[in-house]
Amino acid sequence: MNLVSVNAGARLLVEQLLRQADTLGVAVRHDERGVCIVDAGIESPGSVAAGLLVGEICMGGLGHVALRSGGSDWPTWLDVRSSQPVLACLGSQYAGWSLAASKEETGGKKFFALGSGPARALAGKEKLFGELGYRDQATQGVLVLEVDRAPPAVVIDKVLRDCGLAPEGLTLILTPTSSPAGTTQVVARVLEVALHQAHESGFALADVIDGSGSAPLPAPSPDGVEAMGRTNDAILYGGRVHLTVKGSDEAARTLAAKLPSGNSRDHGRSFAEIFKEVQFDFYKIDPALFAPAEVWVSNISSGNTWHGGATDMDLLRRLWLKEAAA
Amino acid sequence: MNLVSVNAGARLLVEQLLRQADTLGVAVRHDERGVCIVDAGIESPGSVAAGLLVGEICMGGLGHVALRSGGSDWPTWLDVRSSQPVLACLGSQYAGWSLAASKEETGGKKFFALGSGPARALAGKEKLFGELGYRDQATQGVLVLEVDRAPPAVVIDKVLRDCGLAPEGLTLILTPTSSPAGTTQVVARVLEVALHQAHESGFALADVIDGSGSAPLPAPSPDGVEAMGRTNDAILYGGRVHLTVKGSDEAARTLAAKLPSGNSRDHGRSFAEIFKEVQFDFYKIDPALFAPAEVWVSNISSGNTWHGGATDMDLLRRLWLKEAAA
Amino acid sequence: MNLVSVNAGARLLVEQLLRQADTLGVAVRHDERGVCIVDAGIESPGSVAAGLLVGEICMGGLGHVALRSGGSDWPTWLDVRSSQPVLACLGSQYAGWSLAASKEETGGKKFFALGSGPARALAGKEKLFGELGYRDQATQGVLVLEVDRAPPAVVIDKVLRDCGLAPEGLTLILTPTSSPAGTTQVVARVLEVALHQAHESGFALADVIDGSGSAPLPAPSPDGVEAMGRTNDAILYGGRVHLTVKGSDEAARTLAAKLPSGNSRDHGRSFAEIFKEVQFDFYKIDPALFAPAEVWVSNISSGNTWHGGATDMDLLRRLWLKEAAA
Repeated sequence: MNLVSVNAGARLLVEQLLRQADTLGVAVRHDERGVCIVDAGIESPGSVAAGLLVGEICMGGLGHVALRSGGSDWPTWLDVRSSQPVLACLGSQYAGWSLAASKEETGGKKFFALGSGPARALAGKEKLFGELGYRDQATQGVLVLEVDRAPPAVVIDKVLRDCGLAPEGLTLILTPTSSPAGTTQVVARVLEVALHQAHESGFALADVIDGSGSAPLPAPSPDGVEAMGRTNDAILYGGRVHLTVKGSDEAARTLAAKLPSGNSRDHGRSFAEIFKEVQFDFYKIDPALFAPAEVWVSNISSGNTWHGGATDMDLLRRLWLKEAAA
Repeated sequence: MNLVSVNAGARLLVEQLLRQADTLGVAVRHDERGVCIVDAGIESPGSVAAGLLVGEICMGGLGHVALRSGGSDWPTWLDVRSSQPVLACLGSQYAGWSLAASKEETGGKKFFALGSGPARALAGKEKLFGELGYRDQATQGVLVLEVDRAPPAVVIDKVLRDCGLAPEGLTLILTPTSSPAGTTQVVARVLEVALHQAHESGFALADVIDGSGSAPLPAPSPDGVEAMGRTNDAILYGGRVHLTVKGSDEAARTLAAKLPSGNSRDHGRSFAEIFKEVQFDFYKIDPALFAPAEVWVSNISSGNTWHGGATDMDLLRRLWLKEAAA
Repeated sequence: MNLVSVNAGARLLVEQLLRQADTLGVAVRHDERGVCIVDAGIESPGSVAAGLLVGEICMGGLGHVALRSGGSDWPTWLDVRSSQPVLACLGSQYAGWSLAASKEETGGKKFFALGSGPARALAGKEKLFGELGYRDQATQGVLVLEVDRAPPAVVIDKVLRDCGLAPEGLTLILTPTSSPAGTTQVVARVLEVALHQAHESGFALADVIDGSGSAPLPAPSPDGVEAMGRTNDAILYGGRVHLTVKGSDEAARTLAAKLPSGNSRDHGRSFAEIFKEVQFDFYKIDPALFAPAEVWVSNISSGNTWHGGATDMDLLRRLWLKEAAA
């Protein structure tokens, strides 16, 4: 049993987010129960800096997210790394907790969001936690929601109940994808996307021991589908991930060969285009598309490193960039 | 009214500079009034590490300055970013406060310096602060002076008076351009140079929401004009800036087209050469030259990113580099 | 006399290593005397993150070690810098303290290790400390050993005696080269390797004022010779270093010309291959090989920067990388 607490690991970062709220462009309020709600891009503008911090909060304090400038093909990149990649990315960062409420329950519009970040490991509602053999027991928790309005009371009640938290122990961070913080924290999932795909492909998660990667940070789009499409494209066509694993060379080689997004039949077009084509039905998109463009898998049991895939920065530049002088 | 205090934001960084003085190669003394004076390159050697810290102090704790290695065209780069770029760069970092004293006032040589950093926002003597609608009210302030001798008493008195500070509340940091700390903290102005040029070109500062950039860090030159020339060339020919703005696409596109230094009639020769040609009269240099070489402007209102300009690393290598084996 | 204490400078980093032991994958125990022993890759897995921290501990808190992603030729790089490079690298990081014990002394297998890191400067047993004119006087010390078993009691006693430390004042960090932390902290020596070679070539260490560099981080190999070979190859064929010096241009130019590993007659083949060829006798390897591949030497006395050498990433890719799809 892993003794690391992802909620405790995120605590100092959450305190920094609250303390620097003015600088980071986020608004902090407490609801009537005492739950702390951070608006990082709905009424408040949020910021790229807030998104970097939310990215590290999502990883339970077990990862690093840094903005790097440079390169002639795109000016701004995120570097992500973790030496506890499975716990940081799948045990915490992955947006896997379905939080839904019907019109009847909310007394208004229906609500749906996928909760991500450390509090998932308190609730442990997903099958994934059984596979990970991990549960957190902290008395403070933080959950990130990629939404453009605050969750209704019924959803907050459910989160408190499932996490076993008192209201004053819960912090909710709200980041719409179309905001700078939202776009940033989603692109910071480049390593998580690789781990999720590795898991889907049957690779033994216990054999993953280190991970790092990078992806270009696009401008947020005011259009929700376009904004989501860009964060996906950043990873699918610009994402590079280096995983370090143990075990057999055949498993490592197969992972490097099968993992990259280029294996998908849908590869080569923008995510927004594909998503529109399937009439916004996620389940019709080839799951193999959700992967970084290029991967390296190093096997410490043999010392071999396998390489697969390639980025397509030309595609991203066509999608994202216009010449000002044209 | 922005509630962020750039002087409070710089305070922890100033304390780090004082605490690590030995390691950073700077000397700390207090004058007879109690003003704290940090020599970061006059009698003391200073260091690149001190310059990185002074760069962040100049940005009022609202920006990050990091040294990055790599690339085959130049080995050492600065990455700069801020999610409060207008306040960090124009409200604090910009060298805009003229501090002069005549021979009569000093009882010796006349003195002139352009004050930069957070204390400018306490004094608010520049027209720019009216446009920014920003004033700081902190009881501790820090001012950076790009000089090769300490300012005379009459100038320090003026700074205290204009800032409304008690002597023990003021820290002055002195960094000659020809020193490692001086060269470093000036090249760290790559984002500020872009914002200043955007402002000059009439772009609405309130529409700038994020900024990042990079520039190559040259070796300091012992010659003052050459040292200043190199820090300018680093930005004019090697600087890349990514601004995120809101508003109209036409304004964003125009900014990306007009901002780069390549629009200047003086572009293509070293700054030192141009400066000598105009007999050291700044006002004869085309103001359009003071800009980064390459820019990206992302408009979050549309999601579009516009690109303009290009770096000229070949020119910088001709200016800065010699083959050892030749 | 330099007043900086490399052991005091490392103290906060050592405390971080102990506090985050679970996260970093290291095991902390105290021996019967009270000496703190950190296993960072023998029984415990350790991690790249632990290696980055050990790299900064080795530099006595006077340097920065960061992991950077990106580049199409290799995915993962280390950036290293110090504004006190001689003290950080030669006064602390260099693996120069021979610690040996015979079978009779250990009552078992004979032991040999080269101690590196801050505690060397407490013991001052190496001729180098006379040349540096540096000794540390801290009451707490930390020593790093690149070993695959804990040192015997007789060696620990010697370390305590030579350092003048009480047992509870000593921390020993054990990192086998074939572990992730070990490989990481050795590649983080890219700047130290340059300084050591500069020293060997007769360059005046007092004239070195700043340094930075980078090297690709290979996968650790389970084979000891191969693991050591790779960390060397990372520096010899992928290492880039930028030194800033003062003094004559002729000395700076000569340093840039003579320093790179390409000057060695053994250059062009993997270190492991060379090492096997000389039947594992270090002293038969050309000492000129132990150098970074490419260097820049900036002379602040003249402002000139000299360039020498070149990396050979094709060689490293042939040695380290396999195509997964092949």
